[in-house]
Amino acid sequence: MKIEKTKGTKDFYPKEKAIQNYIFNIWKSTALKFGYEEIEAPILEPLELYTEKSGQEIVGQMYVLEDKSGRKLALRPELTPSIARMVAQDKSLQKPLRWFSIPYCFRYERQQQGRSRQFSQFNVDLLGLKTMKADAEIIAITAETMKAFSCTEKEFTIGINNRKLINSIIENLKIKDKDYLYKLIDKKSKMPEEEFIKGLKDIKLTNDQIKSLNKLFSIKNIDELKSFKYDEDAFKEIKELFSLLKAYDVLKYCKLDLTIVRGLDYYTSTVFEVYDTEKEFRAIAGGGRYDNLVDIFGGDPCPGIGFGMGDVVLELFLRKLNKIPELSKQIDFFIATINVDKEAVEVAAKLRKKYNVELNLTDKNIKKQLDYANSIKAKNVLIIGEEEVKKKKVTLKDMKTGKESLISIDSLI
Amino acid sequence: MKIEKTKGTKDFYPKEKAIQNYIFNIWKSTALKFGYEEIEAPILEPLELYTEKSGQEIVGQMYVLEDKSGRKLALRPELTPSIARMVAQDKSLQKPLRWFSIPYCFRYERQQQGRSRQFSQFNVDLLGLKTMKADAEIIAITAETMKAFSCTEKEFTIGINNRKLINSIIENLKIKDKDYLYKLIDKKSKMPEEEFIKGLKDIKLTNDQIKSLNKLFSIKNIDELKSFKYDEDAFKEIKELFSLLKAYDVLKYCKLDLTIVRGLDYYTSTVFEVYDTEKEFRAIAGGGRYDNLVDIFGGDPCPGIGFGMGDVVLELFLRKLNKIPELSKQIDFFIATINVDKEAVEVAAKLRKKYNVELNLTDKNIKKQLDYANSIKAKNVLIIGEEEVKKKKVTLKDMKTGKESLISIDSLI
Repeated sequence: MKIEKTKGTKDFYPKEKAIQNYIFNIWKSTALKFGYEEIEAPILEPLELYTEKSGQEIVGQMYVLEDKSGRKLALRPELTPSIARMVAQDKSLQKPLRWFSIPYCFRYERQQQGRSRQFSQFNVDLLGLKTMKADAEIIAITAETMKAFSCTEKEFTIGINNRKLINSIIENLKIKDKDYLYKLIDKKSKMPEEEFIKGLKDIKLTNDQIKSLNKLFSIKNIDELKSFKYDEDAFKEIKELFSLLKAYDVLKYCKLDLTIVRGLDYYTSTVFEVYDTEKEFRAIAGGGRYDNLVDIFGGDPCPGIGFGMGDVVLELFLRKLNKIPELSKQIDFFIATINVDKEAVEVAAKLRKKYNVELNLTDKNIKKQLDYANSIKAKNVLIIGEEEVKKKKVTLKDMKTGKESLISIDSLI
Repeated sequence: MKIEKTKGTKDFYPKEKAIQNYIFNIWKSTALKFGYEEIEAPILEPLELYTEKSGQEIVGQMYVLEDKSGRKLALRPELTPSIARMVAQDKSLQKPLRWFSIPYCFRYERQQQGRSRQFSQFNVDLLGLKTMKADAEIIAITAETMKAFSCTEKEFTIGINNRKLINSIIENLKIKDKDYLYKLIDKKSKMPEEEFIKGLKDIKLTNDQIKSLNKLFSIKNIDELKSFKYDEDAFKEIKELFSLLKAYDVLKYCKLDLTIVRGLDYYTSTVFEVYDTEKEFRAIAGGGRYDNLVDIFGGDPCPGIGFGMGDVVLELFLRKLNKIPELSKQIDFFIATINVDKEAVEVAAKLRKKYNVELNLTDKNIKKQLDYANSIKAKNVLIIGEEEVKKKKVTLKDMKTGKESLISIDSLI
């Protein structure tokens, strides 16, 4: 009975898992560098955790099930609501909270490049601070993560916007159907100019309004905003944010991008996205400030800002740039055996006090065993046969020169 | 709208996650010591993967859902079937395979001590070898894992049995209802003697048969089996296994335990369990040989042996024995600030090239900041105020003596 894996999911054989671990380790070490602590939430969450504030798109893609007691549960499609729930739930937590996590998330999406129905995400969140210093730290972590993968400012960009700012401008332009407009803006970079204009005309914008919007979305510098009417506080926020990003020495990766609005309903001011400069892939990471989510879930008010970076698009991007190093099995000693069992086991057991040791348990001939040792790039190779057992020694083989020397096992530990 | 977490699941706040990471790191490093490579399978698997061979108990506890295309999926209750599926699927894999994984698994169980509906498991599998050398290596890894948690032979036991052996003895005793008997045996250690005898009488065993069984289950040494009729091959297998366990220097943790049968239908010969010597908890780990599972799932025949160790019972056990070390946040530098923003950010950014640095972003006074630094056991504390900025230096504070010294940041990196 042949059983195929679930469509849209991925098996991680050792090679694939090594790449995943390479990514996870960089994620983890970057978070630790900034003093963040790891947390983990359940994969199964109550359905209501998402229906409230995660936005239509995500809610429509959820895996939902009913448990035996009739409760409706969802496989989490994202982590932020769980974080807000955990913070709401434990009122003794000392703020600010610097948390990171590498959760599996699930979305039933159309199968395509850059998408997997089960994927991992690097989530970094800073809760309990309303100051832009928090936003700057979070965006700096995003930038440092990309840098840690050896990516440069030519390869990726962090586009930054502020929802309060863009909201105020749109309102001052007297545009009413904001939700529709944001959905259109969100897809702007993926559609031809004419289609975007057509979309604007569909909601009956005047030519003046369309002209203003086009001007707005071409802005690359905060000071160019002067010809628009905007919320002063939001403007100050984003000004301060960019000034702090300079102090973090990550300004060269960042740019103002007023087309970034993000699909999640819970963002309240700063929003940002990491994308490849060539815009070949979907967003590599996205995040923003969510100042109301904790109290929506019954907690004391607690502002927060965070981002998520998925493994699937990131890996595609790193592969394209050839930035994934060669990763091989870390074997310190491979022990080849010739008609010997127990004695080789004893040697392996001794060496394992200090080293990673792979012991041959097969009946393969010595040549095949050595070929295998070569293929896994074992750092050292020992041979144990009857001769060695008699002399209570082992043969150390230099795989480069082929030279063999009979040594005592105690000289190795 | 207060939302509670799903019943039977657990939130891992930083403290809980640190313990989980402590456990995961020991699992991982032990597997690497034996030359095992990490793999990962999807959490969502086709339902049929379990209904065939995982045994009634597990199948009854599964979380099942239907995806939008009408496929029936299960949240994996265990990993072994996924491993067999992966091996069946890729016929180019070079055997033997030494694989480990730390998957989340899901079982809808009654809530009780030692059980969580979402749990982690350490899975270690060796595939492609039929020799008892493989079984010995797997059991040695089990023992070394427990040792790595500083557990001693007084605290845990690895009970070992062989299904072919026990099957042959039971058959030779002319007992017919083997399945019922095994279920009874499985619960033997958790019920009073009389209840066990009653159970045996329920399937109409004669007094002689009951006497024989009682004698059988009291056996602690393989050679005491002589008065029974058994399968010779199975006897040789278990003899050889114990002799190899001696070579691995783990014999003191192991004992023959003919009451261990395991609930999973796919085991074919060796079966074993790790339990606390006081038998206060459910099994800490369990495993066995499964020689038919890969071909059942459509692959070329490939024998396998492996075990799973759950995190929930293990953690209870380690807590009881006080074997979980104190784990604190690993901060190399905490930077306290007095009315300074950008300059402190610049110092933090520099130090992060080498160190884990937590930067104060709050408005707390300096005393509160230092109290916090103490509470997280920061290795070093720097203070940056206007004075330091003017002099382009930082104050290094020795938290034990209280001594402060003005130093240049370049002296630290």
